[in-house]
Amino acid sequence: MARYRLTVEYDGTAYHGFQLQRGQPTIQGELEEALAKITGEAIRVAGAGRTDAGVHALGQVVSFDAELRLEPATLLRALNGTLPRDVAAKSIEEASPRFHARFSARSRSYRYRIFRGAVRSPLWWRYSLHEPRELRWDALTSATEALLGRHDFAAFSGAVPGGYSTTRTVISARWHEHDDLLDFEIEADAFLPHMVRLIVGALLRVGRGRLESTSILETLAQRDRAGAGPAVPSCGLYLLAVTY
Amino acid sequence: MARYRLTVEYDGTAYHGFQLQRGQPTIQGELEEALAKITGEAIRVAGAGRTDAGVHALGQVVSFDAELRLEPATLLRALNGTLPRDVAAKSIEEASPRFHARFSARSRSYRYRIFRGAVRSPLWWRYSLHEPRELRWDALTSATEALLGRHDFAAFSGAVPGGYSTTRTVISARWHEHDDLLDFEIEADAFLPHMVRLIVGALLRVGRGRLESTSILETLAQRDRAGAGPAVPSCGLYLLAVTY
Repeated sequence: MARYRLTVEYDGTAYHGFQLQRGQPTIQGELEEALAKITGEAIRVAGAGRTDAGVHALGQVVSFDAELRLEPATLLRALNGTLPRDVAAKSIEEASPRFHARFSARSRSYRYRIFRGAVRSPLWWRYSLHEPRELRWDALTSATEALLGRHDFAAFSGAVPGGYSTTRTVISARWHEHDDLLDFEIEADAFLPHMVRLIVGALLRVGRGRLESTSILETLAQRDRAGAGPAVPSCGLYLLAVTY
Repeated sequence: MARYRLTVEYDGTAYHGFQLQRGQPTIQGELEEALAKITGEAIRVAGAGRTDAGVHALGQVVSFDAELRLEPATLLRALNGTLPRDVAAKSIEEASPRFHARFSARSRSYRYRIFRGAVRSPLWWRYSLHEPRELRWDALTSATEALLGRHDFAAFSGAVPGGYSTTRTVISARWHEHDDLLDFEIEADAFLPHMVRLIVGALLRVGRGRLESTSILETLAQRDRAGAGPAVPSCGLYLLAVTY
């Protein structure tokens, strides 16, 4: 028996998210099916981030156990020969038996990508939100800084089980513009359901002048989900990396 | 009656190329259908480049006549509200009645995009060729220079009608690397069928050391289609721009 740590890239457009759902295509389902074909074993994988339907990943991390011992390079080739073309295994290594993709993770980073061209782009619709309007940079930047540090993010969360802590620590949050793309990148110890998309939705309303930049702090303080407003669509979101 | 000049972007993945084909989805078909819905007229469009099945465009140019006079900005909005999401109208203007997207064009530019990561990428498979192997830069560069200027490109052409000139002038051809992407950009007065993909196929064989860098000049001189070898796939090709 060996434990493996696998880094996965995917285009989430055609999937109902990472987590297994009966009768729906999921990333976990594709990975488990490929591993079953390769090893002949029924293998359960654990992912670092349970990305929603339509969310992409450049560096999702997955752990699993297998009886069959294969050279990591052999297993990597076999996985990429078996997985559909919108899912790929980027790297794999044997890990300590104590390693768990989700519980061992110290932080996750996400990117939210915005396409800024005047007209919608056929080459970017799968991978970004189209937002051509002017954004007030000063307000956007100061609202973004309000997210840093340890806060109760209950207002920026989908439904969670009763008694579940909604306190998270945001390590970094910044905007980066290049060509027609505007990227928001955020790293935190962990994220709540829909947290990045609810935050980006609120920040864009600040950028458009529809909310004051102080409203992010107020929404955090009120811990009321209704205060955050609607989330941006999942097509712009990427799980970038997980650190251990 | 007014003549319009329209710049179009598209993801060619789902289309059988630009040119109208009965019973198949084409870019021309989508544009003519959208224009018919908007104007109520049966409008025929002419494109600057007849891109193949699977080829993308950032700056295809199209000309057409319409009886209905609409403000260009109104027509642009109506087109983008009507076209499917993998086709967009980037800009539109009224043109001289002598303007013709194909016959008035002085040059076309294409990009061929290669993804250089060690493992295939789910986010790039629609938009690039995966080539992770080492490339010999000196050989690739000198082979590329051999393309510049006026040559008979018969060896780098799909079937053309008898008597059709296969002489073209390559204005520029260069490679540009950024992150995991390697782009080949080429500008010529006009292109023959499959010309860019046949050229890139031969250049990559030079880069991999399977052909000498002098073989491009020899192939041009022999004018024999068999000498150029197989074309690279259409998913990596983009019509970038047309100049008038």
